Amino acid sequence: MSDFVLDVPRAERIGFGEAVFCAGKSPAQIDAILDDAAGRRLPMLLTRLDDDKYRALRHASALDYDALSRTAYAGDATPAADYGVAIVTAGTSDVPVAREAARTLAFYGFGAAQIDDVGVAGLWRLMRRIEELRAYKIVIVVAGMDAALPTVLGGLIPGCIIAVPTSVGYGVATGGRAALDAMLASCAPGVVVVNIDNGYGAACGAMRVARLFFFEKKNQKTFTSLG
Amino acid sequence: MSDFVLDVPRAERIGFGEAVFCAGKSPAQIDAILDDAAGRRLPMLLTRLDDDKYRALRHASALDYDALSRTAYAGDATPAADYGVAIVTAGTSDVPVAREAARTLAFYGFGAAQIDDVGVAGLWRLMRRIEELRAYKIVIVVAGMDAALPTVLGGLIPGCIIAVPTSVGYGVATGGRAALDAMLASCAPGVVVVNIDNGYGAACGAMRVARLFFFEKKNQKTFTSLG
Amino acid sequence: MSDFVLDVPRAERIGFGEAVFCAGKSPAQIDAILDDAAGRRLPMLLTRLDDDKYRALRHASALDYDALSRTAYAGDATPAADYGVAIVTAGTSDVPVAREAARTLAFYGFGAAQIDDVGVAGLWRLMRRIEELRAYKIVIVVAGMDAALPTVLGGLIPGCIIAVPTSVGYGVATGGRAALDAMLASCAPGVVVVNIDNGYGAACGAMRVARLFFFEKKNQKTFTSLG
Amino acid sequence: MSDFVLDVPRAERIGFGEAVFCAGKSPAQIDAILDDAAGRRLPMLLTRLDDDKYRALRHASALDYDALSRTAYAGDATPAADYGVAIVTAGTSDVPVAREAARTLAFYGFGAAQIDDVGVAGLWRLMRRIEELRAYKIVIVVAGMDAALPTVLGGLIPGCIIAVPTSVGYGVATGGRAALDAMLASCAPGVVVVNIDNGYGAACGAMRVARLFFFEKKNQKTFTSLG
Amino acid sequence: MSDFVLDVPRAERIGFGEAVFCAGKSPAQIDAILDDAAGRRLPMLLTRLDDDKYRALRHASALDYDALSRTAYAGDATPAADYGVAIVTAGTSDVPVAREAARTLAFYGFGAAQIDDVGVAGLWRLMRRIEELRAYKIVIVVAGMDAALPTVLGGLIPGCIIAVPTSVGYGVATGGRAALDAMLASCAPGVVVVNIDNGYGAACGAMRVARLFFFEKKNQKTFTSLG
Amino acid sequence: MSDFVLDVPRAERIGFGEAVFCAGKSPAQIDAILDDAAGRRLPMLLTRLDDDKYRALRHASALDYDALSRTAYAGDATPAADYGVAIVTAGTSDVPVAREAARTLAFYGFGAAQIDDVGVAGLWRLMRRIEELRAYKIVIVVAGMDAALPTVLGGLIPGCIIAVPTSVGYGVATGGRAALDAMLASCAPGVVVVNIDNGYGAACGAMRVARLFFFEKKNQKTFTSLG
Amino acid sequence: MSDFVLDVPRAERIGFGEAVFCAGKSPAQIDAILDDAAGRRLPMLLTRLDDDKYRALRHASALDYDALSRTAYAGDATPAADYGVAIVTAGTSDVPVAREAARTLAFYGFGAAQIDDVGVAGLWRLMRRIEELRAYKIVIVVAGMDAALPTVLGGLIPGCIIAVPTSVGYGVATGGRAALDAMLASCAPGVVVVNIDNGYGAACGAMRVARLFFFEKKNQKTFTSLG
Amino acid sequence: MSDFVLDVPRAERIGFGEAVFCAGKSPAQIDAILDDAAGRRLPMLLTRLDDDKYRALRHASALDYDALSRTAYAGDATPAADYGVAIVTAGTSDVPVAREAARTLAFYGFGAAQIDDVGVAGLWRLMRRIEELRAYKIVIVVAGMDAALPTVLGGLIPGCIIAVPTSVGYGVATGGRAALDAMLASCAPGVVVVNIDNGYGAACGAMRVARLFFFEKKNQKTFTSLG
Repeated sequence: MSDFVLDVPRAERIGFGEAVFCAGKSPAQIDAILDDAAGRRLPMLLTRLDDDKYRALRHASALDYDALSRTAYAGDATPAADYGVAIVTAGTSDVPVAREAARTLAFYGFGAAQIDDVGVAGLWRLMRRIEELRAYKIVIVVAGMDAALPTVLGGLIPGCIIAVPTSVGYGVATGGRAALDAMLASCAPGVVVVNIDNGYGAACGAMRVARLFFFEKKNQKTFTSLG
Repeated sequence: MSDFVLDVPRAERIGFGEAVFCAGKSPAQIDAILDDAAGRRLPMLLTRLDDDKYRALRHASALDYDALSRTAYAGDATPAADYGVAIVTAGTSDVPVAREAARTLAFYGFGAAQIDDVGVAGLWRLMRRIEELRAYKIVIVVAGMDAALPTVLGGLIPGCIIAVPTSVGYGVATGGRAALDAMLASCAPGVVVVNIDNGYGAACGAMRVARLFFFEKKNQKTFTSLG
Repeated sequence: MSDFVLDVPRAERIGFGEAVFCAGKSPAQIDAILDDAAGRRLPMLLTRLDDDKYRALRHASALDYDALSRTAYAGDATPAADYGVAIVTAGTSDVPVAREAARTLAFYGFGAAQIDDVGVAGLWRLMRRIEELRAYKIVIVVAGMDAALPTVLGGLIPGCIIAVPTSVGYGVATGGRAALDAMLASCAPGVVVVNIDNGYGAACGAMRVARLFFFEKKNQKTFTSLG
Repeated sequence: MSDFVLDVPRAERIGFGEAVFCAGKSPAQIDAILDDAAGRRLPMLLTRLDDDKYRALRHASALDYDALSRTAYAGDATPAADYGVAIVTAGTSDVPVAREAARTLAFYGFGAAQIDDVGVAGLWRLMRRIEELRAYKIVIVVAGMDAALPTVLGGLIPGCIIAVPTSVGYGVATGGRAALDAMLASCAPGVVVVNIDNGYGAACGAMRVARLFFFEKKNQKTFTSLG
Repeated sequence: MSDFVLDVPRAERIGFGEAVFCAGKSPAQIDAILDDAAGRRLPMLLTRLDDDKYRALRHASALDYDALSRTAYAGDATPAADYGVAIVTAGTSDVPVAREAARTLAFYGFGAAQIDDVGVAGLWRLMRRIEELRAYKIVIVVAGMDAALPTVLGGLIPGCIIAVPTSVGYGVATGGRAALDAMLASCAPGVVVVNIDNGYGAACGAMRVARLFFFEKKNQKTFTSLG
Repeated sequence: MSDFVLDVPRAERIGFGEAVFCAGKSPAQIDAILDDAAGRRLPMLLTRLDDDKYRALRHASALDYDALSRTAYAGDATPAADYGVAIVTAGTSDVPVAREAARTLAFYGFGAAQIDDVGVAGLWRLMRRIEELRAYKIVIVVAGMDAALPTVLGGLIPGCIIAVPTSVGYGVATGGRAALDAMLASCAPGVVVVNIDNGYGAACGAMRVARLFFFEKKNQKTFTSLG
Repeated sequence: MSDFVLDVPRAERIGFGEAVFCAGKSPAQIDAILDDAAGRRLPMLLTRLDDDKYRALRHASALDYDALSRTAYAGDATPAADYGVAIVTAGTSDVPVAREAARTLAFYGFGAAQIDDVGVAGLWRLMRRIEELRAYKIVIVVAGMDAALPTVLGGLIPGCIIAVPTSVGYGVATGGRAALDAMLASCAPGVVVVNIDNGYGAACGAMRVARLFFFEKKNQKTFTSLG
Repeated sequence: MSDFVLDVPRAERIGFGEAVFCAGKSPAQIDAILDDAAGRRLPMLLTRLDDDKYRALRHASALDYDALSRTAYAGDATPAADYGVAIVTAGTSDVPVAREAARTLAFYGFGAAQIDDVGVAGLWRLMRRIEELRAYKIVIVVAGMDAALPTVLGGLIPGCIIAVPTSVGYGVATGGRAALDAMLASCAPGVVVVNIDNGYGAACGAMRVARLFFFEKKNQKTFTSLG
């Protein structure tokens, strides 16, 4: 008897399906889940899939795998369209987390612009992009260390800002708690936050917002009852 | 020479104005800020204004003060309209934080439904409201202790969910860190989080999203350049 | 002279014998303990026995070893009977800890049903099993991350609930403190908790309760005096 | 419209009703809940009710209030019977928490023996009571500071042990985290733990176990379906 | 026999004398120290002197007391001169700590410009002062909450930057640890930090630097040997 | 029935009797303990007895009370003799904790020299006393903040050093954890540590050592068996 | 030029010489120190010397190395004599730390009895040794997890007790903070504590005490002045 | 499109250029940055470059690499001159961090004296160098464990003191938080602090100060406007 239960109706309930969190699962468990999904013709997103574990999968060759973000697609992703989402990083070391967000969005059909290395210790890098950033409906901001970028950005742009702290850094920055707390304590009003290194969660939060605009009519049809 | 600088153009940049965070400010400092705002005919929202400090203000009689949420309005609030926002509490002790969110939204013209005491230890209380909750575009969820409500809700409704941990509780719950961490670690995808007891911040986050739908055209006019 | 002292009369005092906690012990130390136990014809349960250490044991081939739960049996386990115990996991990644509980129970003769992957982010998975769960006398609930499952369950079933937080997760969930605190702060009354990843301890707690029903008469004979 | 929803069917679901956690609630809110309960002829247990708040209640004179444990009864408690429960304290400073447990048990009809000041720094105090303690089915152990008592007790008695850490102490003991962690890390197998100062929760945990013996038949009738 | 020993030669060793930290000292102890200092004709700086304690001092009327910064001068301060020091605050709530720094500097003869409320959530407030700030040799930056100001400033000005976190805020900001960690983890190179709310220490750090320029010749005479 | 059990034979077992820790006990509880002790003609030491609680005691007038250290003697203390013990403080704010140690020692007949305000930020204050300090067998060192004194002292004197961290300070020093950790991590070998603000415990530790020299013969008679 | 300075006169000042803490030092650095010591004919104790680093040393073959305790002797240890020291462990996993203490004592000529696996979850193991333990002047107690042993022991024996927490364990016990805090908060009076896993420090603390008895006369000669 | 933006004008703004923090960057990312810098003829400093990653660089052979400090120079460093800077370590294990500071200073043309192993547990090692240390304008102090050195030094020398905590140590010292907090809580006035193990940041802080003296005239020319 299997030790997992795919939440297949999740997409109907909340608008996007369950992803497979691969940390703490064995290759055998992941392959079993992929078998089940394949049987249901259900495309799946896999997150936190380390390179070694990826190589150990029976399904490896059938996956669209990205090592930097440790994500994989099983089955076809939805064709991407523009919904006004941007992903911004403070530094190059934040790129893997940003890419997890980008790959999650892409899997579900949401294109996203990526603007890298605009940390505020070199303020001009941000300021030359600020008019551009003000045009986005949703901005995912990925930053570690002192995480000052969301505060500066939050005071300059009107859109929805989802801040993602990263575990980049050493000393008091180790593990990302300093970045997380700085984001939660931000002086810029209305910045919302997700867990450390949680690019996936930021993307899901962005999709909840983006779907409001674009799928509104369809929603009224889809989200009828909980059965 | 004054020790404050009102960020008057904030409303133009991000869509809503600066509020006065009264904790750590003396009545004299707050009165000086209110003088300045009055001179500019700028309505102001005041947060974290304890009853004692409120009574000590020279401007007290001119304020619309609410003791439960420790908020006050100076000048007229914007007439409220319905933008699909709900505020949900897990328990009665979470109501003051929820009310800070409601009062913030109301000041800027955003009406909000309030649904109280639907914590998941008595699941039927939530389930009988769930169809209703699925209709809201934005749901602010206020919960302390184990903060399990956003996870259950996050798996059942498609809208934007902003979770606010509260400092209610004792032992490991003291100060709200347990509730905050549970929300950040939520297994429901796309729940976004603000600081502990930060009803104000949750409301601002909600406004960033709500304005995207309703003020989109106006925005294109307002948010032109940073000057 | 040996550096261990088997607590042989423990079974007489509390109803079940000492287990060997293998973390922090060398293979030589573990083999010495097994020699001693074998001399006394005492079956032994071994916990936290990593695969590498298991392979390094002189006694390896004589053990009934389970890699997933890192447990081993030396000597024969008691034949299992049904005492109304269930083990529930929130997600697939919690299964190794659940299996440590199951293997501990089985060693002492307590059968246990296992119900997996019923985390409340997909509430239907739990609800379809809830009538079944209400029939168990003792339910061990294994969950990581936000650990919302015990709260929902605690409001729905009348039996004894022993919650086990797991160290699954990243960011604020790292190490399991967030899950532990959420369980301790649970709004559902009477949920009791053991250490993070402590499947063994949850099983022992369950046996203390289960023995009350089934061994009551025998107990009055066995637990006479401390000698 | 009220900001609370009594979980009236809780008693049917889990065997005992909802209590009112008074910390963080205003006297007006508590009185409103008592009005509602009175209208339904529902007896209520109130916890964490400080003396000052108690005196401010409109319902004060109708309550059976105990200042030491900060608990009150509204309506009649169930007549108490002996179900084999004992409450043990390590020191005199732990008595208020122990009394919260005793009052909770008594409200629901469970008598409990109380054995005070048997902390293991003076081991003889415990040892002269140990035969007596071995006769109880369920022992609630309340201890602060180093919380060594549950470990010693856990190695000597066979019954169900529920450990309650207290916030008594200074320095590293402040707030009770040291006591909590010592209990969770206990070397005695099967000790289960509740939140710091949570006498109420320990009593509820004890009732979940005690009801298994005594109400078994009634349960099969009561716990039929969730409706 | 007295329970204090004035470190009179400290000024010779390090360039400025010992201050009296009044927290944790009784009025009688402080008066005794002031008696001793008066006998030696030694001017003294007092810090962390709460209003109540100040009023209880026998020496109260002879002190130059400032309630906002909780500092007092006994004896004459050195006439102030300009050494290129500025003190910057992110918000009005940070002013008391900034004033402790200013009063410390003033006592030893160092004038300081104060620039308030230039937090980066309203970036224009800082940018209009930035050319001015680039002219200072030493800038003390006082900020709480997310403490993003030192990072932005650190990337824009060449002078010595001493960051002081404040305990202003709630939730994760409580006590100032979030602000401290953000400053220590700053992406702007060469920002140095002192303890939370330590305006006094920041001023002393500034004096160590400022004296290098202005007193260099005198130093070579003063700092001869440790005797 | 009483809620305390005096550990009367403790003095026989370990060489000194039980003290009454008054924090968390009501005046009525303390008076009851004093009644019991008086009935047995047992002198008692009381610690953590705040001034208000002291005044509320029925036994107040019969006690030798010291407000600074919050200690009281009931009955006669043992006449003090010199056993080579010194108590050293880093600063004046550490004196209350030092005095708790001194009063504890005095109650049991151990005189102690007190050397105050020799913190190492003004090293000469310590160095002029160092030869004197090298003559003591046991040195209790009381220090808060950075707690650097035990490390310097530990490298200079051969005797037994018991370090007591104090909760004096603000910011990172709040509560004394920084001082405690610095003492535990001391680079000077063989410094032993007690809980924050635990002057009583340091004195007891000192007595365990001092008794070894002076009471050795008597011990062999006293400490015969545990009965 | 070398990056170390041997503290050769330490033995004259405090009674025993400097040891080499090998963690964080390269084999080359350690070999250089050993060269220097050899040149001075100074025997050296090395601690925290991992097996791999030991093998990489040029001096390896000349060392008396013990892998379990990660200690090595360079040159001859002092012949051991009996000074009334015992080392007690709660469990087998604590033995490596106990052995570091034993090897440190032995290097300086102090014999020590070792009594293993007497943790209080099986109280009889301790009680059968308690008369024996009461005869020791100094007892080093090594325990992890809940660290209840020092409290029980501290209430039963009169000698000097030095408690060493160990990092053994998982969940809340990880790293040893729970054990450390339990020891510091011990209800048994006069238990003194050293850093986690610090067998070396406990031994040095024991030597400071033991030398008081046995070397008193010699001390008066040795510890003359600081030169 | 590249994922980095070199902050080329940083040197003009703050006096020294951007360094490449290599932790969290892939060899490919670092090589791309070096390509860009080479194209601009911009010398670069690389920090936190582990040996393995260094070897994997395409640019490896062109770098001046130092394994101990994990730093590398791309292009020519500025010829070093004496600006009165010293770097002091408490112990040999602190040398790698000190060397990171030294290499950073050297890259920008600042020579620095290095004085090692003068920790205050052997106070004479520091005292014999103290007159020498009093002559330096800026002293970087690198220390782990209890970090007592900056406090002693801060009371003896008049110059600017920048303290760097290190992560050396075990138990409570693990990760360096104890050392950091001790430095922040230092009783010596005006000691300023940087992040744990942040030799680079300490050097940058020193350069901000040193440049004030030596480059003052040049500065007035360089730091004109922000463009």
